[in-house]
Amino acid sequence: MNRHGYRLEEIAHLVKGELFGDKDFKISNLASLEQAQNQHICFVNGDKYLAQAEASHAGVFIVTQHLMQQLKSKKNFIVVDNPYLAFATLTHIFEKKVTQKGIESTAQIHSSAIIADDAYIAHYVVIGENCVVGRNTIIQSHAVIDHHVEIGNDCFIDAHVTITGAAKLKDRVRVHANTVIGSEGFGFAPYQGKWHRIAQLGSVQIGNDVRIGSNCSIDRGALDDTILEDGVIIDNLVQIAHNVYIGQNTAIAAKCGIAGSARIGKNCILGGASGVVGHLEIADNVTLTAMSMVTKNISEAGTYSSGIGLFENSHWKKTIVRLRQLADVPLTQITKRLDHIQAQLESLESTLKLRK
Amino acid sequence: MNRHGYRLEEIAHLVKGELFGDKDFKISNLASLEQAQNQHICFVNGDKYLAQAEASHAGVFIVTQHLMQQLKSKKNFIVVDNPYLAFATLTHIFEKKVTQKGIESTAQIHSSAIIADDAYIAHYVVIGENCVVGRNTIIQSHAVIDHHVEIGNDCFIDAHVTITGAAKLKDRVRVHANTVIGSEGFGFAPYQGKWHRIAQLGSVQIGNDVRIGSNCSIDRGALDDTILEDGVIIDNLVQIAHNVYIGQNTAIAAKCGIAGSARIGKNCILGGASGVVGHLEIADNVTLTAMSMVTKNISEAGTYSSGIGLFENSHWKKTIVRLRQLADVPLTQITKRLDHIQAQLESLESTLKLRK
Amino acid sequence: MNRHGYRLEEIAHLVKGELFGDKDFKISNLASLEQAQNQHICFVNGDKYLAQAEASHAGVFIVTQHLMQQLKSKKNFIVVDNPYLAFATLTHIFEKKVTQKGIESTAQIHSSAIIADDAYIAHYVVIGENCVVGRNTIIQSHAVIDHHVEIGNDCFIDAHVTITGAAKLKDRVRVHANTVIGSEGFGFAPYQGKWHRIAQLGSVQIGNDVRIGSNCSIDRGALDDTILEDGVIIDNLVQIAHNVYIGQNTAIAAKCGIAGSARIGKNCILGGASGVVGHLEIADNVTLTAMSMVTKNISEAGTYSSGIGLFENSHWKKTIVRLRQLADVPLTQITKRLDHIQAQLESLESTLKLRK
Repeated sequence: MNRHGYRLEEIAHLVKGELFGDKDFKISNLASLEQAQNQHICFVNGDKYLAQAEASHAGVFIVTQHLMQQLKSKKNFIVVDNPYLAFATLTHIFEKKVTQKGIESTAQIHSSAIIADDAYIAHYVVIGENCVVGRNTIIQSHAVIDHHVEIGNDCFIDAHVTITGAAKLKDRVRVHANTVIGSEGFGFAPYQGKWHRIAQLGSVQIGNDVRIGSNCSIDRGALDDTILEDGVIIDNLVQIAHNVYIGQNTAIAAKCGIAGSARIGKNCILGGASGVVGHLEIADNVTLTAMSMVTKNISEAGTYSSGIGLFENSHWKKTIVRLRQLADVPLTQITKRLDHIQAQLESLESTLKLRK
Repeated sequence: MNRHGYRLEEIAHLVKGELFGDKDFKISNLASLEQAQNQHICFVNGDKYLAQAEASHAGVFIVTQHLMQQLKSKKNFIVVDNPYLAFATLTHIFEKKVTQKGIESTAQIHSSAIIADDAYIAHYVVIGENCVVGRNTIIQSHAVIDHHVEIGNDCFIDAHVTITGAAKLKDRVRVHANTVIGSEGFGFAPYQGKWHRIAQLGSVQIGNDVRIGSNCSIDRGALDDTILEDGVIIDNLVQIAHNVYIGQNTAIAAKCGIAGSARIGKNCILGGASGVVGHLEIADNVTLTAMSMVTKNISEAGTYSSGIGLFENSHWKKTIVRLRQLADVPLTQITKRLDHIQAQLESLESTLKLRK
Repeated sequence: MNRHGYRLEEIAHLVKGELFGDKDFKISNLASLEQAQNQHICFVNGDKYLAQAEASHAGVFIVTQHLMQQLKSKKNFIVVDNPYLAFATLTHIFEKKVTQKGIESTAQIHSSAIIADDAYIAHYVVIGENCVVGRNTIIQSHAVIDHHVEIGNDCFIDAHVTITGAAKLKDRVRVHANTVIGSEGFGFAPYQGKWHRIAQLGSVQIGNDVRIGSNCSIDRGALDDTILEDGVIIDNLVQIAHNVYIGQNTAIAAKCGIAGSARIGKNCILGGASGVVGHLEIADNVTLTAMSMVTKNISEAGTYSSGIGLFENSHWKKTIVRLRQLADVPLTQITKRLDHIQAQLESLESTLKLRK
């Protein structure tokens, strides 16, 4: 954290909340309900955490009006409409930030590169020809910024990141360790039994407030650019192939893979390890649950899913045997045939009764 | 690009195509049909792109004879049998290449390593004992080439690549950023409830013209070597475990995982995020569609698939309920029983009719 | 290997085995049955390898008493109860180890960091404020050890590893190349259509004897820590999200993803590319087969599976058509209805017979 602690009144002010209790109570850190000690502040994210809150040793709780009324034994509160959002805000107060400025002597920076005065370029960073690094941007040790890459203001580029392919990053972009942006797309022309490499001439455009996790691969386009619009957030180990387009504020969980030229709309949420086949479109406001497999366009907003879930192994084996038979079973006819047979039977029965 | 531009005549000559139009037309770059401007050249990859080609501002089009006849409003063409292949060829003309030679002063190279005179070793590269780097090979910033690794001629090793385990790479191999070759395979002997590490003594052999994407892991073998034959192409974030063998010209899309000692044939195509279980064999000319799950040998060439595709979420939930019942439903008997009952019914009906 | 070779007697002593044959036989290396030459030692891992052993050129075989009796044509043996474990032990004898000590001149180490005298810090390593590196630990080239990270004794940290988020690693931990430990978890509060970043304040705790493969991402916790207990082993390209807990000796194969706050028990085995959804619990001694999809708690030890396996493509297409119909087919009723109709029919038939 940047200071030794904060008074309750200061914290309430920061999150625009209403204070109940001792306004001079000293808060040293944020904590979980379970691990909190007396000088810590916690948030209560709904009724289901009330028992945990009651048992917690935290000195202060961020709550709604409703939740405060349930926590009779506690004394210090900050009341807000959205405790989770207030918590998100407070994490930035207690975060340890990189405060260094300037260029470490071991950084290798091409004479044509333009680095803002208040940027920080850490040890062994390599920056190529005609690169631009904006104000207040931090580039951590060993990052490699290849020729013609431009990085905006207030960005954070972590250790061992490689940015190449003349990628352009706007402002407040965060790229976590060991991620690769702008590497060559997987483009090959098959001819006479061999693969002929297509050199990739497009680039990558990354909007404002984009966040990319660690160990991701974001390829440059073949001719046009790969594009991540403003506010896109991406977790770790995600593959974004060449010429993919991702709309504003779409969230992509870890281990997803988006194949070449796919277009994903705004405000989508892709659950972990989902895959999207190339050259298709996903509408705005689509949610994919984890491990989804998208092989066709999705033209309507909504939630979509794949996968058969988890089976106990012997049950699974039997299920797979049946699944292999399924293609030859006319499922939709079975019920119809049963109904038809039932009707015939009943007709026969009544015929017999009449003849009695 | 290496020059400011090319005349249409020069480009036609490079792709061995027939020129129609102004042979002195000046071409500054390759572009997509959509983004092209007047000084750009585009390719038309079949009839379905004709409307886009008509609307394009490109000055020149690479087409087949047949396609040229449809594009009445356009003037400049290069006619070839395979426009996609001609495009692939031209990308190399317009690609910005690394032209540096020699060893940057910050590179740390063991005195026993042999580096060809016209190789380029970028900043902060570390090269260990007894390594060899061939003619015209480029090793980008921060790559680590550990002891006893050998790299052939005309290779490209991008930033932050780690090559260890005494791996041997032949000629024209391209390895993209942050990939690891020759790291220790996942070998442990379970004994008395603990995992006992098996040090990996094998290596990795990589053939000519192999291409490996970014953030891949190619492990060294346990005793024998992991082998990638000539012409294998691999996309990003791919796992190749110890002792895997991959036959010539096989293509592996992003996010695939091949478990230990699997043997994959020649000319196979593995769709993205496919998984292959260890110790099994896949024949030559096998294609796996995306997200395939291979748990048994594949002995016949052909196309194979897994996964249930994508369902609207409420439909998916109902489907999963049914799937969990499937094991207890004797599918193959249902149709037989229906036929049998139908026959009985008809026999009864005719009996009744006879008695009328 | 550390020496030119070993006598059979020495090797037998090292694995506590009984020697049969020439005790002075000189062994230069371990090898596979297939590739072994006369000066090599092999292990035979069960009856199914007997034919391969008979055909092998190896000079010595590690076997059980039972196996030795089948190999009539061979002369030199080491007899043990568990040949695989003996092999695991011997790999350490023949492994080429890093023997360097001290700190390379190009390493950048903060003055407040404490590095044990017999540790090895390779070229271009960056070590931040208040870091600790224990006895006999090896940190390979280009690793970045960020502020407040502590690494125990006898650890191995390979090239391009990033350790940040004040992570704490105990003793004998091995982390392979290009892995990221302690990077920021994927935490965002949605508010008014945008994602608000939650700075991550927790850390990562890694126990003794933990092994992490290459290109993995192990995120720091949001408030509390992400925890890997003693003896956990993890393969390549694995995602461990914030606040995950993994119990002792659990093994996680390549390409698995464990989402945030999931708790995995002791002695579990997760097959390759398995996914575990966030905030759920998996009991001790659970085995997941490859590509499993865990979306609910697993409260009982046992083996579990997902996925439909592999289908020939045209069979698969038909199966998917049927699967899409399945939700509307009352599977459990079909057999009951068939039985009911059968009974009615038989009753009708007997009625008719009686009336004859």
